[in-house]
Amino acid sequence: MATTLKGQPLDRTTLDAMLRRRMFYTPSFEIYGGVSGLYDYGPPGCALQQGVIDAWRKHFVLEEDMLEVDCTVLTPNEVLKTSGHVDKFADSMCKDPENGEIFRADHFIEEILENRLKGDKVARGQIVADKVADPKKKRKVKGGPENIKLDDAVVQEYEEVLARIDNYNTKELGELIRKFDLKNPATGVQPLPPVDFNLMFSTSIGPSSNLRGYLRPETAQGQFLNFSKLLDFNQQQMPFASASIGKSYRNEISPRSGLLRVREFLMAEIEHFVDPDGGKKHPRFNQVKDTELVLLNKETQLSGKTDVQKVTIGEAVANGTVDNETLGYFLARIHLFLKKIGIDQTKIRFRQHMANEMAHYAADCWDAELLTSFGWIECVGCADRSAYDLSVHAKKTGASLMVRQRLPKPIEVTEWQIDIDRKNFGPYFKKSGRLVDAALNATTQAQRKELAEALHTTGSVTIDVAGVDDGKVTVPRALLWIEQRTRTENVREFIPNVIEPSFGIGRILYALMEHSYWTRASEGGDEARGVLSFPPTVAPNKVIIVPLSSNDAFRPFAYELSQKLRKMGISNRIDDSSATIGKRYSRNDELGTPLGITIDFQTVQDKTITLRDRDSTQQVRADEDKIIDAIRAIVDGVKTWQDVESELPAFLGQQVEVAVR
Amino acid sequence: MATTLKGQPLDRTTLDAMLRRRMFYTPSFEIYGGVSGLYDYGPPGCALQQGVIDAWRKHFVLEEDMLEVDCTVLTPNEVLKTSGHVDKFADSMCKDPENGEIFRADHFIEEILENRLKGDKVARGQIVADKVADPKKKRKVKGGPENIKLDDAVVQEYEEVLARIDNYNTKELGELIRKFDLKNPATGVQPLPPVDFNLMFSTSIGPSSNLRGYLRPETAQGQFLNFSKLLDFNQQQMPFASASIGKSYRNEISPRSGLLRVREFLMAEIEHFVDPDGGKKHPRFNQVKDTELVLLNKETQLSGKTDVQKVTIGEAVANGTVDNETLGYFLARIHLFLKKIGIDQTKIRFRQHMANEMAHYAADCWDAELLTSFGWIECVGCADRSAYDLSVHAKKTGASLMVRQRLPKPIEVTEWQIDIDRKNFGPYFKKSGRLVDAALNATTQAQRKELAEALHTTGSVTIDVAGVDDGKVTVPRALLWIEQRTRTENVREFIPNVIEPSFGIGRILYALMEHSYWTRASEGGDEARGVLSFPPTVAPNKVIIVPLSSNDAFRPFAYELSQKLRKMGISNRIDDSSATIGKRYSRNDELGTPLGITIDFQTVQDKTITLRDRDSTQQVRADEDKIIDAIRAIVDGVKTWQDVESELPAFLGQQVEVAVR
Repeated sequence: MATTLKGQPLDRTTLDAMLRRRMFYTPSFEIYGGVSGLYDYGPPGCALQQGVIDAWRKHFVLEEDMLEVDCTVLTPNEVLKTSGHVDKFADSMCKDPENGEIFRADHFIEEILENRLKGDKVARGQIVADKVADPKKKRKVKGGPENIKLDDAVVQEYEEVLARIDNYNTKELGELIRKFDLKNPATGVQPLPPVDFNLMFSTSIGPSSNLRGYLRPETAQGQFLNFSKLLDFNQQQMPFASASIGKSYRNEISPRSGLLRVREFLMAEIEHFVDPDGGKKHPRFNQVKDTELVLLNKETQLSGKTDVQKVTIGEAVANGTVDNETLGYFLARIHLFLKKIGIDQTKIRFRQHMANEMAHYAADCWDAELLTSFGWIECVGCADRSAYDLSVHAKKTGASLMVRQRLPKPIEVTEWQIDIDRKNFGPYFKKSGRLVDAALNATTQAQRKELAEALHTTGSVTIDVAGVDDGKVTVPRALLWIEQRTRTENVREFIPNVIEPSFGIGRILYALMEHSYWTRASEGGDEARGVLSFPPTVAPNKVIIVPLSSNDAFRPFAYELSQKLRKMGISNRIDDSSATIGKRYSRNDELGTPLGITIDFQTVQDKTITLRDRDSTQQVRADEDKIIDAIRAIVDGVKTWQDVESELPAFLGQQVEVAVR
Repeated sequence: MATTLKGQPLDRTTLDAMLRRRMFYTPSFEIYGGVSGLYDYGPPGCALQQGVIDAWRKHFVLEEDMLEVDCTVLTPNEVLKTSGHVDKFADSMCKDPENGEIFRADHFIEEILENRLKGDKVARGQIVADKVADPKKKRKVKGGPENIKLDDAVVQEYEEVLARIDNYNTKELGELIRKFDLKNPATGVQPLPPVDFNLMFSTSIGPSSNLRGYLRPETAQGQFLNFSKLLDFNQQQMPFASASIGKSYRNEISPRSGLLRVREFLMAEIEHFVDPDGGKKHPRFNQVKDTELVLLNKETQLSGKTDVQKVTIGEAVANGTVDNETLGYFLARIHLFLKKIGIDQTKIRFRQHMANEMAHYAADCWDAELLTSFGWIECVGCADRSAYDLSVHAKKTGASLMVRQRLPKPIEVTEWQIDIDRKNFGPYFKKSGRLVDAALNATTQAQRKELAEALHTTGSVTIDVAGVDDGKVTVPRALLWIEQRTRTENVREFIPNVIEPSFGIGRILYALMEHSYWTRASEGGDEARGVLSFPPTVAPNKVIIVPLSSNDAFRPFAYELSQKLRKMGISNRIDDSSATIGKRYSRNDELGTPLGITIDFQTVQDKTITLRDRDSTQQVRADEDKIIDAIRAIVDGVKTWQDVESELPAFLGQQVEVAVR
């Protein structure tokens, strides 16, 4: 069950209402009725997002000297055709022929089978009908389960289907719908057979409508296409990483899970280019090897379990659970980043992809999953994409997306080589020439050795050439030479492999809001109030300045202090509304503002101010300079509230002052 | 003529080659042949962009307490239909029927008329054919001018057309093409009559293809749609501003001016909402009133001149050149921002829009134009959009995009009101009832007074109702009452006006690169080397660390220093390549790196290091802590190089050390 930061049961409805009310986020175009899967961030959401991006840039780009690039979202068809997205980046969708409703096929099957299983449990008396709350379902299914007891074998079959629901293709999903006679509860009609729906938004570029383009579904391709230039920029040194932060787009069939499944989203992606030879070591692996991670490996999942292991990344790489040091290095760095921005350490796990989940070219892949009220959600993917992307783009365009490395000492390479007498070869074979030529060139070293011997002994060679005569072709000695030659190589060429940590910023933000949320009982016995305990480094607004009352004497102090903090780059707001101090503070607890300053009558006399900690509600009092130093240290992450509390005198006068007001 | 920072003639070809070679920017998808109007930023361009955005956020959002929001790029048709973009956001385009080439009609006319005028000048012996270089033309026109002398009257007509080329509509542009018989030089054929081409990229949202959407052409609409929520967030206080930084899109017909005319670009926009009553005062206007601006007002332009005035914004508002304080406040703030990021002060002017350039709803509009080798380029627009956008969205959706303000004291409003006896009115007038009702309601206070008197004296009223009978309708006394009533109003409602400063970040970046560029003669007599003198606060990389040689003793010092700076958030790179120190520094001058550190044998002995200034190439030497403090102060903008030079001992040993190497 989802819990708050303090272990209370998390009431998503209450939290969501608070997040919308305080404008962390809001449905886009709401006054026009909204568009599903599109959300805007209001001021606190936007500032939180900015705080997380700044932290990301410092943690990855700056600390690791990555080459950040900003590539266009608009991408021509040819690029995404080559990468495989035009053909394969699709979900299965099916349509109700009666009311035209459109479903994502796997979600449709999942929903109905889960309802049947729930009905079965009710019929068996294992659960009581109304107590079942499935947090994954936001949408009420009309008709609902009819509480029919199923055969044990059927229950088992349904459960097996649900366990591997992500692994069916479009045709298989169609077969499941027919086999189990799944009907749209709204109409009682079975949907039409599912079809593939490409998830990319398409458009046309330029005035003539003949250059088809898409909104990129990931930032990665732009980085791959710039590989050679980036390698030049890095003075040919390997390994190196590029990075990109920007919007990507997926035209989801039927997005329903709020901020977790949206059509326009911010990604932060790293492409780390590494030599595939030498075990993909990482020079800084030692610095992270003792980081403890919670891992859910593929073997465990294959056996139908979800038991996790808590191990250091050093151990996990050593025992082969994680494929190589570079992948392991990034898993640890991802973990440390999530920790830094305030993700609950008990709600992170790294789940390894099973073979059938991965793209066919991927060598290994782990997702950082965060536990939310929607279950475990993939928030960061970390895949070894091998040399796939660079290879296909190089093949398609003829560009060299290779690394050339001078060998420490030259090596000698001895190989069998075939030379053809081109002048006479063509006229001899006529239009079959090209095929025979290709067949000769495709031979292996071992075959060439045999051919050389045959040529020597029989004066000709006979090889298989599909599509010519009876599939066998004899080439006379006059038309070719086969011999072993030795050459010296000074340079090694290779296409790098790519390790790709890919962050869904919006999902991380949502998880961060759930993980930072808790409720505080109010003293007056009113209903509990929401608090968002973001770390000061990422909190949207750092300081709330609260004059004790609307007395004019307080205004210049508040204004001057606010300007001083702004000059230092510390965001702050003044709340001089007429609400009580307690109310003004609790309003700002909802916004996650870590620090509060009261300006009172004593301030006017001796220029001291109080500083309040959002989480403990404790206060200290000191002169302005000391308080400003403390604020800066906390906001920069150099000191904690505990440090400040031990250095400055506590302030206990709040109650009195409120009464005075 | 365009000049460098040091007043040298600016050679755009050389600068452009350097910017591409050092990967400030690069054509997107270049290995696929590229797509015109799409560019990627490489590492230094991306970091420079980030530096400018950070400065923008501090200067505007933070210092002015603006409400930053992040709205989606995808926008449904209905929103942009209401805003007027679907119908009016278009350029005129024409097509060559022979080769299918597509032109932007105004550019096509401009290019050919300019060529004819040039030919005329050659024929008259006023200029020599090949010496004319028009920096606006990147594309060579085949066939070129044939140097034909024109009649004086024709010359004058062409010049008049060119002067107002921005003001013709599509039909008029077509007439010009026919009248002057303008032909595509590549084919000798006159293009087809121009048609409107909408500049928005369209797509469809969701699986059913029936929700048409566009990529937003500006970030403004998202901010307008959230107006009520933002007003709530701001606790109903006016004035306030929202702000947004994000990509926008325009499907340019034939983009050719490099980074200045692109199809995907970053914008930073502010929407400042202000009460239209009371002269649009700004509470902080006093703080900027002495800022001197270079203004080119509309009267000057109407008289065909480009003479500018240099005045304080205080004067300009006082004498009515700039319409109001709020607009003036933002012009000054824009100027200060451009100055802060390093735009050349002698290459900024504010040009007022002439009446026919402005959107019909705009009250006043000024562009901050920057002088580049392409001429004066609009980089920031600052428009008073009046209440137009909020009004049309409110009308379309029924949402209240109003401010309700409690009046300091209630006011009494006395008005003539008309009440209709609805029960009998309908049956009496039958299907004309609706029209008669509307006509009665549309009457003015003065008319109502007359009607009341007529009703009193004659027992009926006669009014004009178009489309009913003979256009006159008589309503008997039994069906209506007209009387004067008095009510008390406690609240005033109004739709705010919007002042919109809108920044094209890519154009500003390009101008900044031109303005920061100059060449330094090399001592050895090699060709002059490029320098980009960005201010340290926005420079892409702050420090280059240069070990004297590849001696292993230097490595740990360099690495440790680099890590220390990174922890402080100061970007830096180590260049331990085998090039000479001078070469390594000049490589980094091209990247605009403001500071360089040499690590030499003395460093190993006493831990002192040298710090070099990019612009003067002067050096100081001190222990590591002092140098780090100096770096931080320079990067934060707290100190200048001159301050540091006066505080730390100069270092003059560079030449010797280079020789020692």
